[in-house]
Amino acid sequence: MSLLLDNQFAELPADKSVDTKTFLDNVSTLPPFFDCLGSKVFSIIKSDINGNITKIRAVYDQDPAKYVTLQDIVEAERETHKGQWPKVGATLALMWLKRGLRFIQVLLQSLADGDRDENNPNLIQVNITKAYEHALKKYHGWIVQKIFSAALIAAPYRSNFLKALSKGQEVKDEDCLANVRLFLVNYTPTVDAIYEMYSNLNAELDYTV
Amino acid sequence: MSLLLDNQFAELPADKSVDTKTFLDNVSTLPPFFDCLGSKVFSIIKSDINGNITKIRAVYDQDPAKYVTLQDIVEAERETHKGQWPKVGATLALMWLKRGLRFIQVLLQSLADGDRDENNPNLIQVNITKAYEHALKKYHGWIVQKIFSAALIAAPYRSNFLKALSKGQEVKDEDCLANVRLFLVNYTPTVDAIYEMYSNLNAELDYTV
Ligand SMILES: CCCCCCCCCCCCC/C=C/[C@@H](O)[C@H](CO[C@@H]1O[C@H](CO)[C@H](O)[C@H](OS(=O)(=O)O)[C@H]1O)NC(=O)CCCCCCCCCCC
Ligand SMILES: CCCCCCCCCCCCC/C=C/[C@@H](O)[C@H](CO[C@@H]1O[C@H](CO)[C@H](O)[C@H](OS(=O)(=O)O)[C@H]1O)NC(=O)CCCCCCCCCCC
Repeated sequence: MSLLLDNQFAELPADKSVDTKTFLDNVSTLPPFFDCLGSKVFSIIKSDINGNITKIRAVYDQDPAKYVTLQDIVEAERETHKGQWPKVGATLALMWLKRGLRFIQVLLQSLADGDRDENNPNLIQVNITKAYEHALKKYHGWIVQKIFSAALIAAPYRSNFLKALSKGQEVKDEDCLANVRLFLVNYTPTVDAIYEMYSNLNAELDYTV
Repeated sequence: MSLLLDNQFAELPADKSVDTKTFLDNVSTLPPFFDCLGSKVFSIIKSDINGNITKIRAVYDQDPAKYVTLQDIVEAERETHKGQWPKVGATLALMWLKRGLRFIQVLLQSLADGDRDENNPNLIQVNITKAYEHALKKYHGWIVQKIFSAALIAAPYRSNFLKALSKGQEVKDEDCLANVRLFLVNYTPTVDAIYEMYSNLNAELDYTV
């Protein structure tokens, strides 16, 4: 019924470790999120994120027993790829993937919080821009930032976006936003946990593309 | 010595049929061309073109004896995928690939012809724009056109581009352009032949992305 609620993320355990298999299964349901943005322009982003997921899954599949948590993968790669790490393998893929996940999170949170451009209440540019500034802008050079501004024009109306999130069903905006809030309950802590892990392991980079 | 001359395209036979295997081998050497543009922004385009090539090769590999020429593939798919054709399979991949190839061809021809912005003789924006208008603009909606304009700013200086085409060697511009002209001798007729085939088979579409 709702793109997001059909694909609830799992609750984190107390130690905040992220189970690799569960995470991969949960996160694989997110790329269709970018279809909700409406324009084919965003399929580029969908491919980028799909690429990240494929890369992490490929490493996991090599030895599921060894890579039970995401941290197991990142630490194993730190050993194997000494000189190049962390700009390598699943560590790099997850570094970028988490930024895409943060983008989605901040966008949804901002909608749930009712952030709006009062003069254009049916536009979500203000919410997308907030998410972009929070999650990605810092890692983009000025040309990609310009491309973002151009792509922003393709953003859907708020009402259409919420309808797409509800898989095209005519649900009230408030019901859709209630679903969004429910989805964020497990999603946000998962994204936070990955960020924390990167910070703890000193695995974060801030080069721009 | 020169990215292009190391990878000369094969001469076309009198009937202008394009041998699939030779074409795939020749064309696979072109994606590094986009690295010569300098910015990482263009790696997106490289992936798109690599995707086209992979798709055509996958069909060819299923039955090399059946798919000797590119036309064999397109005609076979017309039979197999009746309703969806030509927006399907290798036919679709080659439809877009040929536009990328035409873009490269017009850009190189324009440089070889000495087209220049006299006020900015070391910029190639004028050549890239000419190639874009000729090969792609028509198939891009206004948002992608805007993204093109933003990406255009990332274009390299003429001198750096020619140097990259010469694999970083310091050759005189005129020598590099002589190589470009030599490369175009077989390349242009190959691209033309594919366009002609699409026109003859009524396989061309003009939807925009
Ligand atoms: C014909 C005219 C066209 C001209 C040329 C046009 C070119 C257009 C280029 C635009 C950029 C598209 C966005 C993609 C950007 C990507 O470059 C970055 C880094 O991407 C990472 O790079 C790494 C190496 O550095 C590895 O390869 C990673 O891959 S690895 O798995 O191999 O390790 C890969 O994800 N990802 C990102 O910035 C992530 C983006 C996430 C989602 C963003 C949501 C934004 C929504 C916006 C809504 C308005
Ligand atoms: C975070 C911020 C980011 C926000 C979002 C950014 C999004 C950026 C999007 C920019 C577009 C990038 C260019 C790619 C465009 C592609 O969409 C098109 C059509 O692509 C085709 O589509 C088909 C389905 O319709 C099949 O999937 C084809 O795939 S199939 O093989 O599966 O059949 C596929 O090639 N290819 C093109 O237009 C081809 C482009 C060729 C080369 C162009 C050279 C230009 C050089 C410019 C120099 C200045």
